[in-house]
Amino acid sequence: MTEATIGRSEFDRDTQVQLREPGVYDIDLPSGWAIGGALNGGYLLAVLGRSLSEALAHPDPFTITAHYLTATLPGPAVIRTDPAPSGRSLSTGSARLLQLTEDGTEAERIRVLATYGDLGALPGDVRTAAKPPELPPYEQCLGSQDNPGHATGAPSTPPIAARLDLRLDPATVGWALGAPSGRGEMRAWFGLADGRDQDPLSLLLAVDALPPTAFELGVKGWVPTVELTAHIRCRPAPGPVRIAITTRNLAGGYLEEDAEVWDSQDRLVAQSRQLARIPSGS
Amino acid sequence: MTEATIGRSEFDRDTQVQLREPGVYDIDLPSGWAIGGALNGGYLLAVLGRSLSEALAHPDPFTITAHYLTATLPGPAVIRTDPAPSGRSLSTGSARLLQLTEDGTEAERIRVLATYGDLGALPGDVRTAAKPPELPPYEQCLGSQDNPGHATGAPSTPPIAARLDLRLDPATVGWALGAPSGRGEMRAWFGLADGRDQDPLSLLLAVDALPPTAFELGVKGWVPTVELTAHIRCRPAPGPVRIAITTRNLAGGYLEEDAEVWDSQDRLVAQSRQLARIPSGS
Repeated sequence: MTEATIGRSEFDRDTQVQLREPGVYDIDLPSGWAIGGALNGGYLLAVLGRSLSEALAHPDPFTITAHYLTATLPGPAVIRTDPAPSGRSLSTGSARLLQLTEDGTEAERIRVLATYGDLGALPGDVRTAAKPPELPPYEQCLGSQDNPGHATGAPSTPPIAARLDLRLDPATVGWALGAPSGRGEMRAWFGLADGRDQDPLSLLLAVDALPPTAFELGVKGWVPTVELTAHIRCRPAPGPVRIAITTRNLAGGYLEEDAEVWDSQDRLVAQSRQLARIPSGS
Repeated sequence: MTEATIGRSEFDRDTQVQLREPGVYDIDLPSGWAIGGALNGGYLLAVLGRSLSEALAHPDPFTITAHYLTATLPGPAVIRTDPAPSGRSLSTGSARLLQLTEDGTEAERIRVLATYGDLGALPGDVRTAAKPPELPPYEQCLGSQDNPGHATGAPSTPPIAARLDLRLDPATVGWALGAPSGRGEMRAWFGLADGRDQDPLSLLLAVDALPPTAFELGVKGWVPTVELTAHIRCRPAPGPVRIAITTRNLAGGYLEEDAEVWDSQDRLVAQSRQLARIPSGS
């Protein structure tokens, strides 16, 4: 088997959109990125991010925000983009992902707003107080074959698990053993199962790939994302990345979940925050 | 003088929009919220937030993201909203703020995407690891009459300074004395000068009201916001709020600035993150 590369991988194949007319793209969303029957929010963000990368004058998502309105299902979808007049170094645009419902009307699934630039054109200066997460070596972390996630009630491995090479820090998987730590923290190594390295688009998948921090706070079941904003700060170096997610404040049935993604050269390549909802009774 | 109240204050007067037709609002933006010739980003977010509050089926901004495209000037502006089909407990919508340029064309200044709900309808549960910022009592912090900000090169007090009652923690104003701490932190008490208490809309002003953290990192001059996302988590109690802003990562000419706003009952009422740009040479 040939090792997957950026541009030639499961992720690239499954995020590829077809130009229908200027600013409008079609995609037949495969079921391989589903979890709990609906498609993963980070995967869908990457699909929308790729569409905007084609529609806007600059290639890389510097900051992208998605609002998740209704669950997106495997099958045909259309992405309608709406670019603003672009500037010299940045371009802003909106996008909507829609699917046809049974009665033939278009249902809006996700609405996105983003500003793109060129990560390759940025100067190399770094002044950072942020530190990479401390987690055990890759080999000592737990992959899906170690079954850390199946105590959540999901009887079978979700399709997306086969696409990802996710290795959770054993210190943050108490929830999977019925003993959540009470700390809203989770850490993991993240890669794609076929070995493809990370790029700005796959980082959009990475920031929403871990189980919810809410599990370590004792919440069970589905924690739907209302909104997720990701900043891509740097083009990631080859190799797996490390992800730390943190929740500090759960109140009124909502919580924020912050993610940091660090590359193999100890650079903070992405930061994200999402607002998620805990359905009553969870 | 009558004490200002929510609904009857400078802030309410200056964010009031006029319905032109369904979903379209007019406002004549006053110069009182300007800084450096352009209008403050947090004030403008509140104007857009108020428009969406009128256009959507729910009253309170739960999460709102603004992308700042071009500087907004005092004078007439139009806000065009674009609601998505609303759900039971949440409504999502976009908005654009536009101004006529000299040649008679509409220039887009700001594009916004937000989800609204009803803060009053949320349950009272709180599980939080977040702690309010430690800062000296209000009386020991520095207001604009103490001139902490004028070492930045601004020869005169900007108009917005007269609208705000901002009191900076003396430990975080080294920049104003030409001795930035090198730590990307700033803390302050925040209120409105006319004594109006805070509500969800004025919190949108609060999250962008402090001087940039970049000043404490030794950056001088203008640090324009590319994008700002605010989560309003709770309706604030009466009295001044405390704000802590933090920058952890400045790289490639961009930095993130996180803000937390705490009310007088020690509740985390708002969280925000912005991506800002440091113009080359600053």
